[in-house]
Amino acid sequence: VGSIAIIGLGLIGGSIGLALKQAGLQNTRIVGMARTPDTRRQAKKLGAIDDDAAFAADAVRDASLVIVAAPILAVRGIFEEIAPALAEGAVVTDAASVKRPIADAARELLPPHAHYIGGHPMAGKEQTGVDAADADLFRDKPWVVAPSVDAPESAVNTVVGLTQACGANAIFMDPAEHDSYVAAISHLPLALSSSLFSVVFGSAAWPELAQLASSGFRDTTRLASGSPEMAHDIMLTNRENVVHWLDRMQQALYDLRNVIDRGDSEEIAEAFSRPQIERDNFVLNGPPRRIEGEEIPKISLGEMLMGSKVAEMLRRQEALIRDAESRAKDKRR
Amino acid sequence: VGSIAIIGLGLIGGSIGLALKQAGLQNTRIVGMARTPDTRRQAKKLGAIDDDAAFAADAVRDASLVIVAAPILAVRGIFEEIAPALAEGAVVTDAASVKRPIADAARELLPPHAHYIGGHPMAGKEQTGVDAADADLFRDKPWVVAPSVDAPESAVNTVVGLTQACGANAIFMDPAEHDSYVAAISHLPLALSSSLFSVVFGSAAWPELAQLASSGFRDTTRLASGSPEMAHDIMLTNRENVVHWLDRMQQALYDLRNVIDRGDSEEIAEAFSRPQIERDNFVLNGPPRRIEGEEIPKISLGEMLMGSKVAEMLRRQEALIRDAESRAKDKRR
Repeated sequence: VGSIAIIGLGLIGGSIGLALKQAGLQNTRIVGMARTPDTRRQAKKLGAIDDDAAFAADAVRDASLVIVAAPILAVRGIFEEIAPALAEGAVVTDAASVKRPIADAARELLPPHAHYIGGHPMAGKEQTGVDAADADLFRDKPWVVAPSVDAPESAVNTVVGLTQACGANAIFMDPAEHDSYVAAISHLPLALSSSLFSVVFGSAAWPELAQLASSGFRDTTRLASGSPEMAHDIMLTNRENVVHWLDRMQQALYDLRNVIDRGDSEEIAEAFSRPQIERDNFVLNGPPRRIEGEEIPKISLGEMLMGSKVAEMLRRQEALIRDAESRAKDKRR
Repeated sequence: VGSIAIIGLGLIGGSIGLALKQAGLQNTRIVGMARTPDTRRQAKKLGAIDDDAAFAADAVRDASLVIVAAPILAVRGIFEEIAPALAEGAVVTDAASVKRPIADAARELLPPHAHYIGGHPMAGKEQTGVDAADADLFRDKPWVVAPSVDAPESAVNTVVGLTQACGANAIFMDPAEHDSYVAAISHLPLALSSSLFSVVFGSAAWPELAQLASSGFRDTTRLASGSPEMAHDIMLTNRENVVHWLDRMQQALYDLRNVIDRGDSEEIAEAFSRPQIERDNFVLNGPPRRIEGEEIPKISLGEMLMGSKVAEMLRRQEALIRDAESRAKDKRR
């Protein structure tokens, strides 16, 4: 059992380090890599990593698990850098918000003796950098796991173990599926939030409007304060999916505009009561699908880096979920 | 000095009662009116009111301050009901999110010996009803005060005193101005939030999307869980202003869609970095305008119901703010 390497010590990389430490990982050293020495020093001081390295290749040399927590467009370069240094059987995962380009890069650049399992922890906050890192950032949050087609079960288990050690809920998806879904649930809200702030800020009345801003405006525009680099990489690499959802949003907004403009009391009531009921239901009861009796098995921190026999169960569960999905879709039609 | 009447004991009416009690109002009884006996009993039990009344006219008979905290479309009927019972010099205010129709109704229905000062506390949460009432709901939040043109200074002071007793920041505006501003800062985010939830919920992939929903989706759609009745009344009574802002939003969203679709790295970076910088600046430093040396004077709870000489200062301050506004607008052009 080798070490764990975290490449990139920002909010996500730092938080993963802290979460693993909090989970009580034993006999496994965490090696962190960041370009600036200050970040490495700070990550060590905060207890997110045990050792540090100035170069990605040095950090991964003895690692059985490599976590690349870097901006989407930087991951490719990191894969190139670490490829020659990866140990036999090393598991490589990442934390990027778009999965298809990363999966493609992994297939192209990583050696056959390493195994790529895509990852996307769906958690964040506006603050960036290792100083904002938080051991509980991922607790009860979704964490997408997107294994490459030929990944062995032990590699899948390693990454599922990582998500569990961080307190997150692992969800299996293939990269293309993931990218189309997050375009709706994450990238569309980001675009809307940013656009809403721009519209209101761009008004000549902004000094007055700002005075009236309360929690509603703050919450709906919160995502506009996220890292612009991240937004840039997302919109560039998931362009087609985001544009698709922006078009749907435009249509819905146009319909709502017309409902309001017509001023028909019943129509307006209906437009706002349906989302209210359904959102309350969602907040109270969680997502609609839940397969009873089949849970992703708990992987102990010890098993995490050694593999076990859960992959078969996971595949079975995935098949069940797919069945449930198509049944649900049929019902909705 | 008479009593204070609160007509409507929901989230807002209940919270005003609790805030006044917390502020240590002495020798003044708070009389609350709600249609259902259970609500009145609960408001008394929570300590939001001292006495209760089943009819609005009974509640206001001895009141020097009447606070109508009812849905927008219910206020007119309440004005009709209380008009014959209002005491000489009674000050009437409200808490509705749209001010012009209420000001019109006040002019039309209230007797000349009563004084209407519009009010709009800009605070809220998704929960409704007196059980969700909170003495600190208005703390550090904006509270718009929209005096009718012929209101005496003592009446203005009474309502400013009310906002201060609740810990809020009074902001002066005329009703039409208010309605156009809140359309941008409050009603547009509400429409967007609701529309975003509808779009994502309406997708056949909702069961999968819901699994991936994290804090970003929750925050941007939070307003969709607000009272549909309130949304209905807002959209119906502030229709033209909301449609105006929805049109601007549509245009901005269409522009952003095209920027993303073109896939030009620099353009995308710019689209997201400007809002991020400006929002952070806003969150950190607050609204851009601040007139130094001129503050709305503190009105003691004693003065609140007796009037004092602050109105002249308020008018002076308002003139200063208007000057600053036009200067700011000139600068932005």
